[in-house]
Amino acid sequence: MKGYPESVSRLIDAFARLPGIGRRSAERLAFHVLRESSQEAMSLAQAITDAKTRIVHCPTCWNICDDLHCEICSDPRREASIVLVVEQPKDVLAIEKTGSFRGIYHVLLGRLDPLAGVGPEGIVLEPLLARIDDPSKNAQQVKIEELVLGMNPDLEGDTTALWIAREATKRGVRVTRLARGLASGSQLDLANPGVIADAIAGRTGI
Amino acid sequence: MKGYPESVSRLIDAFARLPGIGRRSAERLAFHVLRESSQEAMSLAQAITDAKTRIVHCPTCWNICDDLHCEICSDPRREASIVLVVEQPKDVLAIEKTGSFRGIYHVLLGRLDPLAGVGPEGIVLEPLLARIDDPSKNAQQVKIEELVLGMNPDLEGDTTALWIAREATKRGVRVTRLARGLASGSQLDLANPGVIADAIAGRTGI
Repeated sequence: MKGYPESVSRLIDAFARLPGIGRRSAERLAFHVLRESSQEAMSLAQAITDAKTRIVHCPTCWNICDDLHCEICSDPRREASIVLVVEQPKDVLAIEKTGSFRGIYHVLLGRLDPLAGVGPEGIVLEPLLARIDDPSKNAQQVKIEELVLGMNPDLEGDTTALWIAREATKRGVRVTRLARGLASGSQLDLANPGVIADAIAGRTGI
Repeated sequence: MKGYPESVSRLIDAFARLPGIGRRSAERLAFHVLRESSQEAMSLAQAITDAKTRIVHCPTCWNICDDLHCEICSDPRREASIVLVVEQPKDVLAIEKTGSFRGIYHVLLGRLDPLAGVGPEGIVLEPLLARIDDPSKNAQQVKIEELVLGMNPDLEGDTTALWIAREATKRGVRVTRLARGLASGSQLDLANPGVIADAIAGRTGI
């Protein structure tokens, strides 16, 4: 026996290609799959197949949905003139959980990352500009008045935000971004210098 | 949007059921699958399906193989009277890689773990005793002369080894176990007290 049977090796390889899964973990996962009941193992295979075949992106906001009817874009109670731009679908879910945003979204499905070779054409930026230019491209045909930038507060997120802010400002849209400062419930003496600097620069009257 | 689309949630749940994969990692893996090409995602689903349908256990040694023809059991150049007993198929591979064992194997597919409720009927012990009792149950119809116990050197491994040693001795088979002592290439001053104690108890003449 020079190695595992071919189908086991292939399973280990497939697991090892996932992000954050090393060779050892991949072996552990493969043997777990071999050990567990056929039904449970197949439910993972089926879930992968289903997700890849069923999930589509909303043609307006590019969030993921089970069919082309996006429940946020098509909700008439939402303020369609305010669009919050985020990097990923999971950011939408994080914001929705707070219940504190009543506008709609635009999901970039990525961020500008010049070092990794991701330029404006590598993420969903063109459709965002089209939504600004042409209100009929928005689900409720409403003109976008304000763009709230909600990228992650890091280098690539800021790069992406600057690019969008420049293009949106050219088109006469008001651009804001999510506030930065101390995290609610945290301790000032344990905060990063960058966080404290943000909190000072962004101080507000009370 | 109260949560992810149903098929995404199901994919996250399926990943989260794997050992060592928490909720956050499962989300990350699911979004990776959604992002990557259909072909790559499907290769994981297919690998799971293939492994579950193709992999069988050798009816003699219970190691995993692609078909019922186990290349170790059926190799006439191997010393079929010496059987090394291990817990898992990956232990067989680890030993085969060293090229220092010319006998055949028996894979228990587990270990006795009374605290977790795993008794002798929960692992492949009965077939091992049958192999000892009846040479015709061995691939080469050879009588087993020596049983080498190669369980992991820990509490459950030792429990399992003691159980097997007792049963095999009753049947007149010579029982040995893998040596314990200092790991080659390690430093004595950094070794565990248990390792040093094993090395002293097992000291050999030179």
